[in-house]
Amino acid sequence: MGKLLDSIDSPKDLKVLSLEELNRLADEIRQLLIRFCRRHGGHLGSNLATIEPIIALHYVFDMPHDHLIFDVSHQAYTHKILTGRRRAYTDPESHEDLSGFTSPKESPYDDFILGHTGTSIGLACGMAAQRDATGGKANIIAFIGDGSLSSGPAFEGLDWAAEQGGNLIIVVNDNEMSIAENHGGLYKSLAALRASGGRSSDNPFRALGLDYCYVEEGNRIEDLTEAFRRVKDIDHPVVVHIHTRKGLGLGQGSHGQIGPTSVAQGDRNTAHMTSLPDLPAEGPVEANHWQDGLDSLDRLPNSRKTYGRMAMQALESRFPQEPGLTVISPATPLSNGIDPDFRQRAGNHYRDVGIAESHAIAYAAGIAKAGGTPVVATSATFFQRAYDQIEQEMALNGSAVTLLVFSTGIAKTDATHSGTADMVMMRGIPGLTCLAPTSGAEFLDMLAWATGPARQPVVIRVPGERTLATERAGKPTTPVSDPSKTDAECGSDPAPWDRYRILQEGKTVAVLALGDALPLGRDLADSLEKSMGLKPTLVDPHRYDRLDEQTLNALASTHSLVATIEDGQLDGGWGQAVAAYYGPAHVRTLAFGATKEFNDRVPQATLMERYGMTVPAMAQTISDALADQAS
Amino acid sequence: MGKLLDSIDSPKDLKVLSLEELNRLADEIRQLLIRFCRRHGGHLGSNLATIEPIIALHYVFDMPHDHLIFDVSHQAYTHKILTGRRRAYTDPESHEDLSGFTSPKESPYDDFILGHTGTSIGLACGMAAQRDATGGKANIIAFIGDGSLSSGPAFEGLDWAAEQGGNLIIVVNDNEMSIAENHGGLYKSLAALRASGGRSSDNPFRALGLDYCYVEEGNRIEDLTEAFRRVKDIDHPVVVHIHTRKGLGLGQGSHGQIGPTSVAQGDRNTAHMTSLPDLPAEGPVEANHWQDGLDSLDRLPNSRKTYGRMAMQALESRFPQEPGLTVISPATPLSNGIDPDFRQRAGNHYRDVGIAESHAIAYAAGIAKAGGTPVVATSATFFQRAYDQIEQEMALNGSAVTLLVFSTGIAKTDATHSGTADMVMMRGIPGLTCLAPTSGAEFLDMLAWATGPARQPVVIRVPGERTLATERAGKPTTPVSDPSKTDAECGSDPAPWDRYRILQEGKTVAVLALGDALPLGRDLADSLEKSMGLKPTLVDPHRYDRLDEQTLNALASTHSLVATIEDGQLDGGWGQAVAAYYGPAHVRTLAFGATKEFNDRVPQATLMERYGMTVPAMAQTISDALADQAS
Repeated sequence: MGKLLDSIDSPKDLKVLSLEELNRLADEIRQLLIRFCRRHGGHLGSNLATIEPIIALHYVFDMPHDHLIFDVSHQAYTHKILTGRRRAYTDPESHEDLSGFTSPKESPYDDFILGHTGTSIGLACGMAAQRDATGGKANIIAFIGDGSLSSGPAFEGLDWAAEQGGNLIIVVNDNEMSIAENHGGLYKSLAALRASGGRSSDNPFRALGLDYCYVEEGNRIEDLTEAFRRVKDIDHPVVVHIHTRKGLGLGQGSHGQIGPTSVAQGDRNTAHMTSLPDLPAEGPVEANHWQDGLDSLDRLPNSRKTYGRMAMQALESRFPQEPGLTVISPATPLSNGIDPDFRQRAGNHYRDVGIAESHAIAYAAGIAKAGGTPVVATSATFFQRAYDQIEQEMALNGSAVTLLVFSTGIAKTDATHSGTADMVMMRGIPGLTCLAPTSGAEFLDMLAWATGPARQPVVIRVPGERTLATERAGKPTTPVSDPSKTDAECGSDPAPWDRYRILQEGKTVAVLALGDALPLGRDLADSLEKSMGLKPTLVDPHRYDRLDEQTLNALASTHSLVATIEDGQLDGGWGQAVAAYYGPAHVRTLAFGATKEFNDRVPQATLMERYGMTVPAMAQTISDALADQAS
Repeated sequence: MGKLLDSIDSPKDLKVLSLEELNRLADEIRQLLIRFCRRHGGHLGSNLATIEPIIALHYVFDMPHDHLIFDVSHQAYTHKILTGRRRAYTDPESHEDLSGFTSPKESPYDDFILGHTGTSIGLACGMAAQRDATGGKANIIAFIGDGSLSSGPAFEGLDWAAEQGGNLIIVVNDNEMSIAENHGGLYKSLAALRASGGRSSDNPFRALGLDYCYVEEGNRIEDLTEAFRRVKDIDHPVVVHIHTRKGLGLGQGSHGQIGPTSVAQGDRNTAHMTSLPDLPAEGPVEANHWQDGLDSLDRLPNSRKTYGRMAMQALESRFPQEPGLTVISPATPLSNGIDPDFRQRAGNHYRDVGIAESHAIAYAAGIAKAGGTPVVATSATFFQRAYDQIEQEMALNGSAVTLLVFSTGIAKTDATHSGTADMVMMRGIPGLTCLAPTSGAEFLDMLAWATGPARQPVVIRVPGERTLATERAGKPTTPVSDPSKTDAECGSDPAPWDRYRILQEGKTVAVLALGDALPLGRDLADSLEKSMGLKPTLVDPHRYDRLDEQTLNALASTHSLVATIEDGQLDGGWGQAVAAYYGPAHVRTLAFGATKEFNDRVPQATLMERYGMTVPAMAQTISDALADQAS
């Protein structure tokens, strides 16, 4: 065992193998992926489903002359293993070497950096158009999961493909499962196609003008190679709908005996098992989707889950009284603390609309118009997919929609999942009240306001790790709204977050630290006092869509330098707005934040160094500015 | 004639009419709309197609208890006429009173401000969900044209509708025509449905799990009322596919004899007639889509058409040598000077992908990856719909895609079509080179660079009316790149637009005027010199994604005040970045630009006054700042 894989340095090495050997190779890869994900963490379920399809594709086609474009691309581990990158999966020392997504920087077999949903077909259409314009012959293959099909860009691509014509192979990898659950009428049709061996008349692909074929045993290499051979060099777009099994090979005690037999038996239940017996996981589905690594065993829940759960708990208590209070998640609920138990209890108060962010916002605006109270929760990076609906349906229409923005800030992330630009994006849109709470209590306070008296578009940036660490350490956090006021009095304030909060009165220097940067601001203030004997004023702005000009004016009269710190991109951000406000005044400004750039899995400490955002670096910059001012 | 319409103050007044009277009313409205659009301009073709459907909807349903949500909503003139707003169409003095789109500010019969495509179904799903959560009984109706169906948000909404269940009526108004042309495989299916009386098996709506019915004579009130009665109070989502005729009633000399007869005869060709004989119009299709008003007769082409045509001409000359040079337009080509003749000649060098902006960018990124040179052209407001693809597929992937951003700047626009926020949006995204040319020649120079040696993501903000007026007046414009250099030399410069261009050397004050604000900057410089005897330095930055720090540093040593002017939103903009750069320095700054706010058809002059951007206001602000500095 393990010998076959050692001989595969490129897809060429596949082509000499017998079917029996290909099956053995699939088993080796399956065991390798389970080992890898157990230790390192990763998208286990989807990768277990795609082992045989990817082997068959590389066996039949000739990459990189032919092109294979994975949608989202988190299911491409086997592709990486077969294209000269297996060491990152076999050698624990190298586990961190590769992106979890495709990347042209890693390999000529990867055409794109992809991590968002639904664009593989459009990209493939473009590559095919250019091939046809230049007389090329390559096969262009898009590989897209059923979960991605609910997204608008995927539909736009499917719709265009038929019109374009020419060779284009769209492999629909149907494992009957999106990230959490599949949603939408499309999935009824996919189910009917599966049940009928592809013969059901309500065929969404044929209805978009596409040729179609079906492979029931999508994890059987011989069936896959036969189907792919049939469509190789085809002269028009075709959908190859393959029925695969998410998490195939996972199951209680089963991963020791994985082999062709277990695959052929195809016990459906194993695909839905919670996780490997000794692995931490939550929920039956997400465990397959994302497997936490061993190092997560001792970890406390992160800020996303902690604050997400707090928010859901607060909302849930109101469900009985408020029929229109609705949490909407465009997939990925669990990562944001929207647990299966909550979803179960919430009933129609919770809606997973699938990977369909544009719809999530339009849907929420409709609920709000009709008097309901929708809360849309997802990651910063995915709200990008609804920019136009946030601007038009939500902001312009003044819809009482609340957005909970998770996974924000300067952190080690995949390049495709950065959380640094969300504040820049949101604050650029008129009509949004954008809040950055600095404690769990304030977060709940803001959520209560946004889903209560506000009746206007509100964006809340969920607190991050620094705030959570501060709270866990029992250090001081920001107070909630005036406890002497009753709820009704609080509610009567049309804009309770308009004013900045002065946390410490000082002189010469004012430090304005936004949201999750507030703990940094506190440390900076302490450092300035200790190292320079200078006690600065410390301010919690907790709002980033506009300025509290009254407080800024007051600061100007008693301070010569105002420093802003934000846990996000400087360019286009709130700190630049503060600087511009003081532009004509005597006050000087320093804005600390992230450089506008893409980063791929760069450690947070490295980024903070690079951006001059460590406490010593900021203290030094302030000291230099004061010296320059005095000169 | 005309008497019936006078009696309709609300939809209630419809309900007492006989079928013959309803038909007569339709004729009166048809003549009214033609008169209105002839004088005022407007979306003529789509509104002529929707007269009978809207009459029938208001006849059968009970708005505003029931809810009618128009997609894009530019086809809602008849709805406005029937809901107490007919005077704006009958009285020339009132022609400017109404938005061309629905607006809750105008009427309780309008639920949303809508002007972008594809969200009506999502909004309707939301309203229906809230109705069901609260035990309501209203019919919720989305009214969407076939042209809108190609958009991702529409698909996401259709997909969700079946899952949601409950009463929801989706009227698909199929006039066989998007804005210019329909594109995509979906339209083959719609054609097959029309040809088969709705019985074709490749039914995209049924394939998404939706009930379906078909009305062949979508401009026959009796057929429509019968169909709508059948679905009224239905307990599940249903698509009512109605076959209507865009521009029905238009035709050479025919508009004098419009009546039930001509409708019944339904001469298909009339729907495709260029325009009313004495009306200005271009192209057979767009003339129906948008009818210019009489005041446009003497007008020269605007900046969009002028510079768009220049760009297309420049690109066309290269088509024979560059097979992958491709202009992509997600609908609305003509407005941007992409004329039918050009499209005809361009062949596969031009692609109208339909209203599918996300796809347009992914498609372009695919072409670029394969070595082609794609140029995506559309309005500033529509690029919002591809924010995520611009960030991921274009910028993060470093794709050699060029965006031509039309219809920008502070201007009188519908609230849904603002051109003030595009620079803020684009400059917030890392990895984009964002250019703002200040003359036609420089525009072409930048386009040649972007589609030539650059091989990187480039955004070009097409010059606007101020630049065009300057050029037409023969006033000085900015020079193009150094004529002493050969093309190869120019091409070897990796970033020819990195450095700001000093147009006039002065002192004390530096005026940095970006893009179409440069003529304002020139006038301001002249004004300062005349009124204060102060000759300022005048700078053309012509790039807004980053700063030329070298020039900014040089300015700091000889100027005490730097003023920036940009033709767009201040908050998040380039001027704030300049201010922040100077934050720690001795230099003071003033940033002129638009306030972050929504505006609906506010005259440009009013906006410029409000934003303190008139030349006298800016001169005064500068003078005050200098006085304050001296004090």
